[in-house]
Amino acid sequence: MRRLIQKMKEKGSAVVVGIDPVIERFPPEILAASPRTYDRLMAFGTEVMAGVWDLVPAVKFQSAYFEACGLEGLRALGDLIRLGRDKGLFVINDVKRGDIGSTAAAYARAYLSPGADFEVDAITINPYLGDDSNEAFYRLAKENDKGIFLLVKTSNPSSGQLQDLEIQGKTLYDHVAENLKNNPYYESREDYSFIGAVVGATYPRQLKSLRRALPRSVFLIPGYGAQGGGGEDLKVAFGPDGFGALVNSSRGIIYAYEKNPAGIRQASREAVIAMNQDLNQWRMK
Amino acid sequence: MRRLIQKMKEKGSAVVVGIDPVIERFPPEILAASPRTYDRLMAFGTEVMAGVWDLVPAVKFQSAYFEACGLEGLRALGDLIRLGRDKGLFVINDVKRGDIGSTAAAYARAYLSPGADFEVDAITINPYLGDDSNEAFYRLAKENDKGIFLLVKTSNPSSGQLQDLEIQGKTLYDHVAENLKNNPYYESREDYSFIGAVVGATYPRQLKSLRRALPRSVFLIPGYGAQGGGGEDLKVAFGPDGFGALVNSSRGIIYAYEKNPAGIRQASREAVIAMNQDLNQWRMK
Repeated sequence: MRRLIQKMKEKGSAVVVGIDPVIERFPPEILAASPRTYDRLMAFGTEVMAGVWDLVPAVKFQSAYFEACGLEGLRALGDLIRLGRDKGLFVINDVKRGDIGSTAAAYARAYLSPGADFEVDAITINPYLGDDSNEAFYRLAKENDKGIFLLVKTSNPSSGQLQDLEIQGKTLYDHVAENLKNNPYYESREDYSFIGAVVGATYPRQLKSLRRALPRSVFLIPGYGAQGGGGEDLKVAFGPDGFGALVNSSRGIIYAYEKNPAGIRQASREAVIAMNQDLNQWRMK
Repeated sequence: MRRLIQKMKEKGSAVVVGIDPVIERFPPEILAASPRTYDRLMAFGTEVMAGVWDLVPAVKFQSAYFEACGLEGLRALGDLIRLGRDKGLFVINDVKRGDIGSTAAAYARAYLSPGADFEVDAITINPYLGDDSNEAFYRLAKENDKGIFLLVKTSNPSSGQLQDLEIQGKTLYDHVAENLKNNPYYESREDYSFIGAVVGATYPRQLKSLRRALPRSVFLIPGYGAQGGGGEDLKVAFGPDGFGALVNSSRGIIYAYEKNPAGIRQASREAVIAMNQDLNQWRMK
């Protein structure tokens, strides 16, 4: 997280660009250039990153869209991850994994081990299995100087179905946050713990209460833009220093070219510039 | 699930062999035969399946152990899945995925679409994001005649941390079961719905109450053997017809050769024969 915050400072940005590629949606020039899934994903991802890498601290790959393309998709994912890291970006793989301890440790090795094909700076994890799952990720992340974003309150319409259930006057997501705060791995000698939290932009009230509950977590915030969350709602999430939140936009950036004839690279760039401006008015004091 | 139950009848078995390969643990003859990860995983998985395919209805691959081996691991996973299906086994990929609706649909395409590199008969999913995640999986599974196993009560020591929390006199896992039962996709004209549930063998009391709550779900039951769950505890899970539970053993079968000098193939076979005998005394009336 220290590396992430350093990059947020350097770039003057709290934006993470979400790369969720759907080949059917790609522009004709990419589809015409090659019939191969790998080539198409690489062309698309490379263009997006070329447009934004000097403007944002981080990119987030959504593993599902690459897995949906099979082995060629995963080969492209590994190569795009490396490209992002080579460009100095903090790279997150949004995998939302969770499993019994020994299996969670295998997932951790896949994404947090130096030299792994899919080595990234941070991943997202799912808390449903409890701390023997979470701690397998925390342990390897700590060893390898990596970050974790634990799902606390997600941005989707049905996130409340379980997450908002009330237990002894608190919601389930409050319990998840409390378990995190009380976990020995959460302690940090720095301003922020290496364990962040996923909290959706679409639920501003919850964002506010979770900011108080987890002052030392960087929040990874989905739901800006396409899913409906706006800049002002996010003000509280940034915290007093302005580095408490990393706000994701995927479709609003990577598909900006559908409404902007400047092409993928330039359209992504312009969308990021607008988003930086929007967010920075709320995060700067 | 119809296909699964047919295979359970044919083989006279409620065992699913869990293939969770850890290369460091492989026997010297496999390590000596090739230095390549792909070759080693293929040799191991092929030997295990050659030993058990005529004795069990199903195999379950734990995706984490293949992801931990990077692209070569995933290539082996795809090829072992195909080998299992070619041998007439019902193949489960234990991926425990869950995400917002559109992303969950991409995961569903990766594992449940005809012709996908990782196409299997069923996958496991995680309920933390609620029904827009779950339903994206249910929808594609129904379309493609596939199965889903929803995590309800997992087998690991810390599963109770969230799953056992009490909400209005019921636990969180009860809520997950109830949401499943009330979901329109759960209806079925056959004895069993295409949506099963993961319920750990290590919690017999919960297994009993969930059997009552979800009479039309096949339970995928981890935790037998290495994790401590025994045959008698499982009696109730099978239900009146004996087809309500598919009991997983991974380490107890695939690493049986460590205590049995007959080699991987024969040692796996003998371990499955013993497990079939143990379970069948409880499931037969």
